[in-house]
Amino acid sequence: MVEAAAQDDERRLAWVYLSRVVEGPCAALSALIESVGVVEAARAVRECELPESLRGPTALRRESDCAARDMDSIRRMGGRVVTPDDPEWPAWRMLGLAQLEAGRDRDGAVPLVLWVRGPGSLLAWSERAVAVVGARCSTGYGDQVAGEIAGDLATQGWTIVSGAAFGIDVMAHRAALAVGGATIAVLACGVDRPYPAQHERLLDEIADAGLVVSEYPPGTVARKHQFLARNRLIAALADGVLVVEAGLRSGARNTVKWARRLGRPALAVPGPVTSAASVGCHRMIRDGEAVLVTRAEEVIDEAGPLRLSLPGAAGRTADPTDTLIGDSAAIYAALPAIGSRLPVALAEQTTLPLSVVRACLTELELAGLIGTGDTGWYRIRRPG
Amino acid sequence: MVEAAAQDDERRLAWVYLSRVVEGPCAALSALIESVGVVEAARAVRECELPESLRGPTALRRESDCAARDMDSIRRMGGRVVTPDDPEWPAWRMLGLAQLEAGRDRDGAVPLVLWVRGPGSLLAWSERAVAVVGARCSTGYGDQVAGEIAGDLATQGWTIVSGAAFGIDVMAHRAALAVGGATIAVLACGVDRPYPAQHERLLDEIADAGLVVSEYPPGTVARKHQFLARNRLIAALADGVLVVEAGLRSGARNTVKWARRLGRPALAVPGPVTSAASVGCHRMIRDGEAVLVTRAEEVIDEAGPLRLSLPGAAGRTADPTDTLIGDSAAIYAALPAIGSRLPVALAEQTTLPLSVVRACLTELELAGLIGTGDTGWYRIRRPG
Repeated sequence: MVEAAAQDDERRLAWVYLSRVVEGPCAALSALIESVGVVEAARAVRECELPESLRGPTALRRESDCAARDMDSIRRMGGRVVTPDDPEWPAWRMLGLAQLEAGRDRDGAVPLVLWVRGPGSLLAWSERAVAVVGARCSTGYGDQVAGEIAGDLATQGWTIVSGAAFGIDVMAHRAALAVGGATIAVLACGVDRPYPAQHERLLDEIADAGLVVSEYPPGTVARKHQFLARNRLIAALADGVLVVEAGLRSGARNTVKWARRLGRPALAVPGPVTSAASVGCHRMIRDGEAVLVTRAEEVIDEAGPLRLSLPGAAGRTADPTDTLIGDSAAIYAALPAIGSRLPVALAEQTTLPLSVVRACLTELELAGLIGTGDTGWYRIRRPG
Repeated sequence: MVEAAAQDDERRLAWVYLSRVVEGPCAALSALIESVGVVEAARAVRECELPESLRGPTALRRESDCAARDMDSIRRMGGRVVTPDDPEWPAWRMLGLAQLEAGRDRDGAVPLVLWVRGPGSLLAWSERAVAVVGARCSTGYGDQVAGEIAGDLATQGWTIVSGAAFGIDVMAHRAALAVGGATIAVLACGVDRPYPAQHERLLDEIADAGLVVSEYPPGTVARKHQFLARNRLIAALADGVLVVEAGLRSGARNTVKWARRLGRPALAVPGPVTSAASVGCHRMIRDGEAVLVTRAEEVIDEAGPLRLSLPGAAGRTADPTDTLIGDSAAIYAALPAIGSRLPVALAEQTTLPLSVVRACLTELELAGLIGTGDTGWYRIRRPG
C-alpha cells in the first residue's frame, strides 16, 4: 500500500512537472506519454532524451522542476490538480480530443492535467453541461437572454460552462450562481489569476460554489493562443455549445468550431438583424454551423439526451449496447462475453490507440455496460 | 382575321363566365377545360351537362352569365382580365400549380383568369419577383426591416409581391413604391374592393404604379378560405417567399407552405427571441421550413438565379439544356432535332397532362430554347 501510494505520488509529480514544462496542450508530449508512460516521459524530458519534435516545446522549462512548488501553491489556495489517473478526471469528456489527437489533428490534444478550484466534482458536474458563450460587447438584449436561458438550464440541473469573460460569459455564470446551480469557468490563465481583473470577485464566487478550471499551472498569464486552446476545453466539457450574441469575428465562433469537431451540437440565439452583436449568430445559423434556439427547452432538445444512452434513462427499454457507435462499439465488441481484457490487449485487438481505448472504456463504464477488476475490463451481465 | 377575333372573344367570354361561376380555383373545372376546351366547358356548365363533381361547385351561379357585365366593369375601372390565352398570362409561373393540379393535389389549381388593375405587365413583372409577407400585428422592428429589405430588392429590379394586408405587407408595398420599384398586390377579393378598407389609397397607388391582381371577379368580397387560395398565388408569382415577423399561427406560414410545395425557397428574418412577433419565423428556421436571411443580398442569393438558367445569364457558359429538370427536360427531349411537334403529340409521347406540357413549353420558350410556328413547337438551334 505504501509502495502504491509512492507510485501514485511519483506519477502525479510527473504529470505536474510536464504540465509546467509545456504550459498547455502538446500533442507530441501526449504521444510520448502514451507510448512510454508518464513517469518515463518525465524522465526523458528532464534528461532531454527526446525526439526532435519535443526539444523545442520543452526547451524553455524542462530544467526547472516546479512540480512540488506548484502542488503546494494550488493546495494553499484550496485547489487541486486533477490528472488522468484520478477518478475525478472526466475521461469520457476527453474522448473527442483523444480521437483528434490520435488522428494527428493539429491542436486536438487532451490536456495533461487540469488545475481546479471549487467544491464540485469535475467528472460529475460535466455529466450534463451546456457551454454558454458569446460576445464580450453584448447588448442588454443578449445579457437578458443569456441570463434567462442559463438560469433555466441551471435550474433544470444542467451545469453552465463558460469562460468568465465580459458580456455573455459573465451573465451565464451569474445566472447559474443565482439559482444555486452548477457552473464551471474555464480559464486561459492559471486558476489563481483573476482574468479579467474586474472578475476577481466573480471567480472567487465560482470557486466557492462551482468550479474554476484551467490546464495552465498556477501563475500562468493569459496569452492569445491560450484562449483558442481554452475554447476547445469549454466545448469538450459540455454536451453542446450555445452562442448568445456574437459579432462577425467573435471568439465564440472558435468555440463553435471546436464543438463541431468534437461532435457536440452548436446552437445560436437569433436577435434583431439590425444588431451588430447578432451578426455572427445569424451567419452561423444561415451557414448551417449552428442550430437556431430561442429558449432553454430547445437547448435541451439539442444537447440531450446523451449520445450514449445511459441504462435506466427514461423512455428507453432497448438494449443500450444497440446505441453504441464507432470506437465504443468496437471496444465493447472486443470484450469477451465471459472473462476480461486489459486495455493493451484491446488496443491490439481493435488497432485503436491506447488513449482512445482508455477513453472509450471510461465511457462504457459510466454507461454501466462494463466493469473493471484485477484482470482487466469485463462486460456487465444485464438482466433479461 | 375577323373570324379569329370573334373566336378570341368567345373564348374570353367563356373564361370570364366560368371565373364568375366558380369564384376561385376549381381543379375539377380546370380538368374539364383541359379535356374539352374552354368554350365547350362553358357550354357544358351553362347547360349542366356535368359530371357529379362539378354540379355542386357550379350550382349557385351557372344560370346567370355576367361575363359581359364583368368585362365592362373591369374595363370601366381601367383594368383588364388576363386569361391563359393572353400573352400577358404568366404561364411559367403557373407551372407548379399546374403540376399540383395534374397530381390531383387538393387546392393545387391554376387560376382560370386573373383580374388585373395597373400599368405593369403581369408576365414581365413576375419575372424577377420576391413575395414579402408577414404579421399583421408587426412591430416597429419588423416594419423597419420589411421596408429596408423590400426597398433594397425593388431598387435592384425585383418586384415585391404581397397581400396588401396590415403590417408587413403594407410596409413591403410602400417601400417598393417609394423607390419607384415594381409591386404586385394579390387580393382575396375583387380588385375593385379595397380590403382592408383603410388601404383604399394604397391600393389605388399600387393600381397607378404597379399591379393589383385577383382571381376573383369584380365585386367579390373577401372570405376566409379565399385568403388561403390567395396565398398560393402570392407564392406562385414569386421566386421566393420572405417572411418578416410571424406569430405562431400567422397566415404567412400558409404562404410558406405554398412556397415549399411549389419549389420556391422560403426565407425568414429572425428577430429578438423575446418578441412574440418573431416566434413563427424562428420556428420555421428551426424546423428547416425557412432559411434565415438578414438582408436583401441574402434574399437574392436564395431566390435567384432562376432554377432554369436563361441563355446569356452571367457566368454561365454550359449548355442551358443541361440544367433542365423534370417535365421540362422530358418535353425538350421529346422534341425532334429537326421538325416540330404539337402539344397534343408531346402529351401523348411523354404521357404528361396537356396543361403541364403547355406550361413547360412556355417555360422552355421563355428560356429561349424552343420556338413555335404553324406546325407546332421546335428546338432552337444553338451556336457551337
